[in-house]
Amino acid sequence: MIKAGIIGSTGYAGGELARLLLQRDDIEILWYGSKSYVDQKYASIYQNMFQIVDDSCHDDNVEALAEIADVIFTATPQGFCASLMNEKILSKTKVIDLSADYRIKDVAVYEEWYKMEHKTPQFIKEAVYGLPEINREKIKNARLIANPGCYPTCSTLSIYPLVKEGLIDPGTIIIDAKSGTSGAGRGAKGDNLYCEVNENIKAYGVGVHRHTPEIEEQLSYGAGRSVTISFTPHLVPMNRGILITAYGTLTKSVSYEEVKAAYDKYYAKEYFVRVLEKDVVPQTKWVEGSNFVDVNFKIDPRTNRVIMMGAMDNLVKGAAGQAVQNMNIMFGLPENKGLRLIPMFP
Amino acid sequence: MIKAGIIGSTGYAGGELARLLLQRDDIEILWYGSKSYVDQKYASIYQNMFQIVDDSCHDDNVEALAEIADVIFTATPQGFCASLMNEKILSKTKVIDLSADYRIKDVAVYEEWYKMEHKTPQFIKEAVYGLPEINREKIKNARLIANPGCYPTCSTLSIYPLVKEGLIDPGTIIIDAKSGTSGAGRGAKGDNLYCEVNENIKAYGVGVHRHTPEIEEQLSYGAGRSVTISFTPHLVPMNRGILITAYGTLTKSVSYEEVKAAYDKYYAKEYFVRVLEKDVVPQTKWVEGSNFVDVNFKIDPRTNRVIMMGAMDNLVKGAAGQAVQNMNIMFGLPENKGLRLIPMFP
Amino acid sequence: MIKAGIIGSTGYAGGELARLLLQRDDIEILWYGSKSYVDQKYASIYQNMFQIVDDSCHDDNVEALAEIADVIFTATPQGFCASLMNEKILSKTKVIDLSADYRIKDVAVYEEWYKMEHKTPQFIKEAVYGLPEINREKIKNARLIANPGCYPTCSTLSIYPLVKEGLIDPGTIIIDAKSGTSGAGRGAKGDNLYCEVNENIKAYGVGVHRHTPEIEEQLSYGAGRSVTISFTPHLVPMNRGILITAYGTLTKSVSYEEVKAAYDKYYAKEYFVRVLEKDVVPQTKWVEGSNFVDVNFKIDPRTNRVIMMGAMDNLVKGAAGQAVQNMNIMFGLPENKGLRLIPMFP
Amino acid sequence: MIKAGIIGSTGYAGGELARLLLQRDDIEILWYGSKSYVDQKYASIYQNMFQIVDDSCHDDNVEALAEIADVIFTATPQGFCASLMNEKILSKTKVIDLSADYRIKDVAVYEEWYKMEHKTPQFIKEAVYGLPEINREKIKNARLIANPGCYPTCSTLSIYPLVKEGLIDPGTIIIDAKSGTSGAGRGAKGDNLYCEVNENIKAYGVGVHRHTPEIEEQLSYGAGRSVTISFTPHLVPMNRGILITAYGTLTKSVSYEEVKAAYDKYYAKEYFVRVLEKDVVPQTKWVEGSNFVDVNFKIDPRTNRVIMMGAMDNLVKGAAGQAVQNMNIMFGLPENKGLRLIPMFP
Repeated sequence: MIKAGIIGSTGYAGGELARLLLQRDDIEILWYGSKSYVDQKYASIYQNMFQIVDDSCHDDNVEALAEIADVIFTATPQGFCASLMNEKILSKTKVIDLSADYRIKDVAVYEEWYKMEHKTPQFIKEAVYGLPEINREKIKNARLIANPGCYPTCSTLSIYPLVKEGLIDPGTIIIDAKSGTSGAGRGAKGDNLYCEVNENIKAYGVGVHRHTPEIEEQLSYGAGRSVTISFTPHLVPMNRGILITAYGTLTKSVSYEEVKAAYDKYYAKEYFVRVLEKDVVPQTKWVEGSNFVDVNFKIDPRTNRVIMMGAMDNLVKGAAGQAVQNMNIMFGLPENKGLRLIPMFP
Repeated sequence: MIKAGIIGSTGYAGGELARLLLQRDDIEILWYGSKSYVDQKYASIYQNMFQIVDDSCHDDNVEALAEIADVIFTATPQGFCASLMNEKILSKTKVIDLSADYRIKDVAVYEEWYKMEHKTPQFIKEAVYGLPEINREKIKNARLIANPGCYPTCSTLSIYPLVKEGLIDPGTIIIDAKSGTSGAGRGAKGDNLYCEVNENIKAYGVGVHRHTPEIEEQLSYGAGRSVTISFTPHLVPMNRGILITAYGTLTKSVSYEEVKAAYDKYYAKEYFVRVLEKDVVPQTKWVEGSNFVDVNFKIDPRTNRVIMMGAMDNLVKGAAGQAVQNMNIMFGLPENKGLRLIPMFP
Repeated sequence: MIKAGIIGSTGYAGGELARLLLQRDDIEILWYGSKSYVDQKYASIYQNMFQIVDDSCHDDNVEALAEIADVIFTATPQGFCASLMNEKILSKTKVIDLSADYRIKDVAVYEEWYKMEHKTPQFIKEAVYGLPEINREKIKNARLIANPGCYPTCSTLSIYPLVKEGLIDPGTIIIDAKSGTSGAGRGAKGDNLYCEVNENIKAYGVGVHRHTPEIEEQLSYGAGRSVTISFTPHLVPMNRGILITAYGTLTKSVSYEEVKAAYDKYYAKEYFVRVLEKDVVPQTKWVEGSNFVDVNFKIDPRTNRVIMMGAMDNLVKGAAGQAVQNMNIMFGLPENKGLRLIPMFP
Repeated sequence: MIKAGIIGSTGYAGGELARLLLQRDDIEILWYGSKSYVDQKYASIYQNMFQIVDDSCHDDNVEALAEIADVIFTATPQGFCASLMNEKILSKTKVIDLSADYRIKDVAVYEEWYKMEHKTPQFIKEAVYGLPEINREKIKNARLIANPGCYPTCSTLSIYPLVKEGLIDPGTIIIDAKSGTSGAGRGAKGDNLYCEVNENIKAYGVGVHRHTPEIEEQLSYGAGRSVTISFTPHLVPMNRGILITAYGTLTKSVSYEEVKAAYDKYYAKEYFVRVLEKDVVPQTKWVEGSNFVDVNFKIDPRTNRVIMMGAMDNLVKGAAGQAVQNMNIMFGLPENKGLRLIPMFP
């Protein structure tokens, strides 16, 4: 029985972690951490858990939790995990951080985009970027996982093979992303009220979204050189789902089969990445509630570009599901254990 | 390994059956029946099943299927199942019919409300109304299950204890029901287009909805006498979920605790019926994707009425999930096997 | 040119008032009042007004406004208008109060349901309940209008004729109401976040909603005796619209034509109340953005009840549109001036 | 009084035309044309028109209509208008065609993208592309207007100034577009069912959407040379609204003020194009129900690109509103007559 604790369990990603872990019989959640709801019944915050979870919320004391937990998930705001990380914690437990604190290797880049000082940069090097389809081997022995962001997960997986194989010019990559509103969190902000989001679509964070350098770093590893991208996220009136539509200029004339082969080279054996059949477009609804990323592409000979598309549930593969996938790898379990979730439709 | 076949597998209830059964390792689906998509890949109809189901659709030949299946689910239009049922089929396999064909014991009532002749009334008496919380014992040995309708499931479970205990006057029951749009099926009708349903709410079938006699029959069993109700369903702009708000006049002055005790008497040991805490209202979102029915009530001393509320996922407890629950009972399995689904939120 | 001021102009009802008044050339809005946004550009709060309104927000100083305005609309929280009303204001300007402060004639009832002391009960008697279809004559010479609540407008108009004509037993009236989310206001509350409302329906304020006594009072006038009702509102995932479904027991056997005649007696000449054709159900989408109330009914001979239905835009006929209708009457203008809005579909 | 006829009045664009024209007192609609609903009450198709329109639908006989109408709007499927156009019609009435039949000057391009033969190419040259902000002078004396497509209107207006002023390299333009579902029409197609669209986003027509050559042609006029673009539309779960996000590489280093000046040069005097203030993003909800296009841009010095954004109501400025704007110009009326509609929020 793996003993797990969730710090930040009352946000949407924390709630999703609870949902995924509670459906397993090899995990025990012994700590529902919360900043705002200490001593309140968890099931009063997440009524779906009524008669399933009887626990009340604990505080966010990671050190105390580290004494008793085999793994700690931190689904907390940027800077929180970095502010309290120390060797003692890491010597006692494994940490999977769902925030951005350890995702970016260059601390100066982190501090510039996140507008905050990094309190524990000494752990950045050790932290493993938890995108299993690319970093599986490193994850196995990691103590500290930087669980990827939602947009970076979907973007990187959709684009990586073509960058790695040199089929597109990395300097031409444009990512136009669309996300459901759960990505904005459960905080009571006026901009996220039902009537402000419903029947509406808008871009946000244009040119300055914090996921930009994270995507650039991952694509740079694939390209073997520094990559700069355009990244524009949009808020879509739906609860869950991310769709990315990416554009890149082809480095040479290629056939459908050649591009398909590039995707298959990396994903044919991946359970969670589904390369769709020709001309079938990824749709967020078809992956909702699951850990799948559906990807596909279209070559546009008129413009010599390829359009790359990816769809994913932002709370599952984009957050909690990927965290569980990382946990499975770290504990030597089958990677898809507890994650063979069939998307819910409609 | 239980061998199962789904007739009508390409409708929403059929798709949900596939989703639930595929997540189990003790069931094999050997027949995806379809009227419209024979020989097409099932995963091309339900793209969520891509790389999960490789089968193509078969026709709707129940007789052939009965030769090889341990259980057949018919998620088909009214009249279909009744039109082909025979002793040979029932002697070879178990049938769980998700249509209304065998739900109503009085064939004249069926024919009046459904505006069609019943082709095999000889099986009506044998068929067991598959509401496990009330008919569990009869289900165990049934060959033919009449799987309850979505509105009747939610309505009956919300009201039954108070009728049975004589706390409300059965002649005063009014049920105002609200359903997500998946209840209307996957057929291409203009009324169900996105732009016609979105940002809209309306009543439909006022005074003539077919689920009315089904609810009346079940409540009559509880009351021990014939019950006539008002039932008004509404179409709500959401995919899944049924909420019923029911009104009944109290037969005597009662306390919160007395009414609560009536619910607890019937549901305290029921896994799938959750009687919420005082003043917590049932919400469809909190049960989405699960087999739970959340119920609660409010006594209104000003009017001497009690307001009874119930929320449920129409495709799970209202259709496919309840069918699987019935299957579990029929095969001697734990009743919640494969159904310990935690509702997805948000 | 009528000079108008809006106190509470940055809420949804206030914004709708601005929208309706700005489309006229006989009205000048000289005051956009706000508690939270003083000195901010109104168009930065309501971006739809960009390049249409150049004004910044003023404070909520009604006395100062009364010096210069012909009419003041107060679209403010309960208690605000009552807290500052005085003879000086009413001697200088007309006031149309969109809050509940002067709607209920019995101050004890107000204080019980609204849980606050009424600061200026001396004006309650003078205030005219601004439901033009019933109180048109009194509105003409009023100084102070209590603009009806959204649910009471839709409920009263849907039920009034049958109560007045004695066709239903007033003691049996049950109103099951459904509202879009704009009725909950623009305040940043967690319960009104997109992800909490979307794909969800729930009842709220069961048995205790403040609009209950307001509806009861109006129906009591029609019935000629005190009426007690059950009223249950629900929150629906849409921006605008109220649908009410009401149930009443018939006092005698009646035909469709007799009931229709009762509605026609009161509404045949009313521009804003549309009695739909037989078997056509009211739908909120078909009145969106307009000042119409669509009503219809269905006789259910099985239960001896009549189901009364009404649909309306809660921000127009349920708030701002009705306020403008009242203003038109008070200023001797055609009642539908500026309100001949055709519902927007889809 | 201008006498107008609408061919294809029962589609969404036709319904919107009716809504806009009926709110004016200088227009008489004398013909509600329909292919499917001849002799049915128009208000039974569009229930919002109940008690506003008493007419029944006529057939689609344009020749008969031309005898009595001053202007005919054809809101019909591709190929219909071209199939029946002739000199006689144009000599008797003005025609504003909302289909694509006369939008593209090169008939070969039309036939390639629309996969149909053009029946009356002799009128293509005469037809004026009805984008008033660019072609106002030509529209004044036109007999035949090719009313622009929804995506082309929003795309062209958002990008045109920068192309025309040479600030972006036309060969680098990528347009990622998002549309509400009303753009898909009122036909009963399975893909447009509520449950298939809701909680979902997808790209469609990737690389092959018919609006591509239309946008290219208009931008080519601005650039003074042939322009090829990438254009990817997406279906968004909302009724109305188009948002385009476009990317172009800057030809030189420019300041915010320089780019702003380019937009202002073309739009400062345009009533319907609103160049938003710095860092305010266009949102579809803020223009809903109006004829406005909100545009803005963001310079991204990291990539040397500019991100251009535009939001619009696809049924108003993208179809019916623009058609009315063209009519106003053709009849010498104030261009914004009947179109000073304030967007509805929320």
